[in-house]
Amino acid sequence: MAEFEVNPYEVQGKVDYRELAKRFGIRELDGGLRERIFKAAGDSHFLIRRGVYFAHRELDWLLDKYENGEKFYVYTGIAPSGSMTVAHLLPFTLAKWLQDRFDADVYIQIPDEEKFLVKKNKTLEEIHDLAIDDARNIAALGFNPRKTRFFFDIGNADFMYKQAVRVAKHITFSTIKDAFGFSSETNIGAIFYTSMQAVGTFIKSVEEGKNIPCLIPMGVDQDVHFRIARDVVDKLGYYKPATIESVFMPGLKGQQKMSASDPDNTIYLNDDEETVVRKANRAITGQQATAELQRKHGGDPDRCAICQYYRFFFEPDDRKLENIFEAERRGTVLAGEHKKHFADTVNRFLKGHRKKKDAITDIERFFLET
Amino acid sequence: MAEFEVNPYEVQGKVDYRELAKRFGIRELDGGLRERIFKAAGDSHFLIRRGVYFAHRELDWLLDKYENGEKFYVYTGIAPSGSMTVAHLLPFTLAKWLQDRFDADVYIQIPDEEKFLVKKNKTLEEIHDLAIDDARNIAALGFNPRKTRFFFDIGNADFMYKQAVRVAKHITFSTIKDAFGFSSETNIGAIFYTSMQAVGTFIKSVEEGKNIPCLIPMGVDQDVHFRIARDVVDKLGYYKPATIESVFMPGLKGQQKMSASDPDNTIYLNDDEETVVRKANRAITGQQATAELQRKHGGDPDRCAICQYYRFFFEPDDRKLENIFEAERRGTVLAGEHKKHFADTVNRFLKGHRKKKDAITDIERFFLET
Repeated sequence: MAEFEVNPYEVQGKVDYRELAKRFGIRELDGGLRERIFKAAGDSHFLIRRGVYFAHRELDWLLDKYENGEKFYVYTGIAPSGSMTVAHLLPFTLAKWLQDRFDADVYIQIPDEEKFLVKKNKTLEEIHDLAIDDARNIAALGFNPRKTRFFFDIGNADFMYKQAVRVAKHITFSTIKDAFGFSSETNIGAIFYTSMQAVGTFIKSVEEGKNIPCLIPMGVDQDVHFRIARDVVDKLGYYKPATIESVFMPGLKGQQKMSASDPDNTIYLNDDEETVVRKANRAITGQQATAELQRKHGGDPDRCAICQYYRFFFEPDDRKLENIFEAERRGTVLAGEHKKHFADTVNRFLKGHRKKKDAITDIERFFLET
Repeated sequence: MAEFEVNPYEVQGKVDYRELAKRFGIRELDGGLRERIFKAAGDSHFLIRRGVYFAHRELDWLLDKYENGEKFYVYTGIAPSGSMTVAHLLPFTLAKWLQDRFDADVYIQIPDEEKFLVKKNKTLEEIHDLAIDDARNIAALGFNPRKTRFFFDIGNADFMYKQAVRVAKHITFSTIKDAFGFSSETNIGAIFYTSMQAVGTFIKSVEEGKNIPCLIPMGVDQDVHFRIARDVVDKLGYYKPATIESVFMPGLKGQQKMSASDPDNTIYLNDDEETVVRKANRAITGQQATAELQRKHGGDPDRCAICQYYRFFFEPDDRKLENIFEAERRGTVLAGEHKKHFADTVNRFLKGHRKKKDAITDIERFFLET
């Protein structure tokens, strides 16, 4: 039995995703369902093709609804705690594709209190500023302002608190204690918080006054919020949300999840060019100890953080990704060149991203008005 | 050791108020402090004179501040759950006097979610309507609209949730579990709620951007909210609020606290004349079993619910109250006359009250704008 722990506030041990799916009661995204998504979309998406999004809840139900003419909306989010990383972009990348391919409205929650409640070192004012910055980073991915709504727990509390209270009435402390790794010493704001995160799963149904199916792209560590929310929103008379859940993007130094505690283990959206070069140089590769051995035996792309960064984010084209993997495998690319190419790719992306972000001077037009 | 339990959600056993003060760490309101209040007010108040308000926290500190030119504001409130009773009017009666005599602003919290979270049978919409009705009943006592602000947890959540989050971070589940009689099966909205109730203790300091002393008139059953809040607001850099705390108004049938479970045990502000007559007739008195015995031995005002209703609310004039008590003691008034006089008094009050309430057609001007 694999020993690991995954919840929104802690990932411990080496995660066995198949085992995790069983534990959470989520279903693995198999080839048949993938094909069904791609057929309905008229397109495919690399994060689904490659199994980065590996599991789901009731995605088949959602597609049934869609095929019967009931459009869904997409709900996802990010809790501001510092500069965003490329790993943070995964659910938004998929949400953008869902918006484009399914004409889906996208609701993005930016809880501007969560990290205040569960961490020690940020004021609400600092988190507010980070929240606005996160919104601009996300909007820069090209979301349609007419079909995208950011909402904030404190910033939209006039709407959110009432809805969260409706949810909270149905959740006991004992339900969330183990699920979130809480104890009697957890503060009562953190205890209440999951009620706020549940609101996104029915926010559009409240707005429209009728049930609208909801799809949530997210990292699998967030699953417990919605495992609990699904039970509650059912009692409130709303559709249970469907989910599509991803594995963790590994760290540049090989840890299984990017960690904010070692900045060199991740790429931040505000990293400058030199920082990216340094991080690329310090990243682990799957290569042999010497150039000679690498040329002779080749390396292992699965153990190479750089190859994995291409796979998760920086190379959406499967053929080009295969070329990168193949060169690593055959030993035709050495570490220096591999890292330089990676640093160039990342810096090109970040430069383009920041240009798009700078062009967003009126982020408020993306905000939910309540 | 007296066996009783007092918290906002439960009063059990026969309360020994002296013992309760010790248990809660509140101080009894002695003659010296009473005189100091009356001197500062240039007036006295029957609820303080008669010991209905029997205890306090740091009222002496508050008077020091006042005498040094720092004005205080008054914070109190009511959680809507049905029609208001005369017992509910006690803290507002005192608050009105404090407003008049100390030129104090009065902030009145009407939590429009609490009873939804802790009881089963009311929707948020029903509670909202009750909240507005409560506000009109309270305003009818003659509060100055320029110096009085009603605020609502859901209705002012844009302001309230952020402030409550600041509080909640400093309160753990273990702190409130025993204090409120909660368990692991308590819902997480009820668990969070005390954070909302704490906000009133520093609301004016937030508004003014500087520390303003706060005085809270309340029933002693609410003490635990502020016992906890005082620790937290101190950490947030605000003055700890002072309190002035009352015993429970007894029931007409002699129970120690008016209870909503038996409507005949209480006077509701919307009782019609016949209902009041019926309740008066069913009320317990301290009289003897027969008219003859009563004429001979007299009765006991302390055991007479009607006498107590005069004492707590309907007869502010001490001399007139003493006449009523004396007639009961001497047996010069018999039950029928005693009850009729009481019913007439209550009906006169209710008629006048409803007239004042009906005259309040723009309750919104009393509401806090956030």
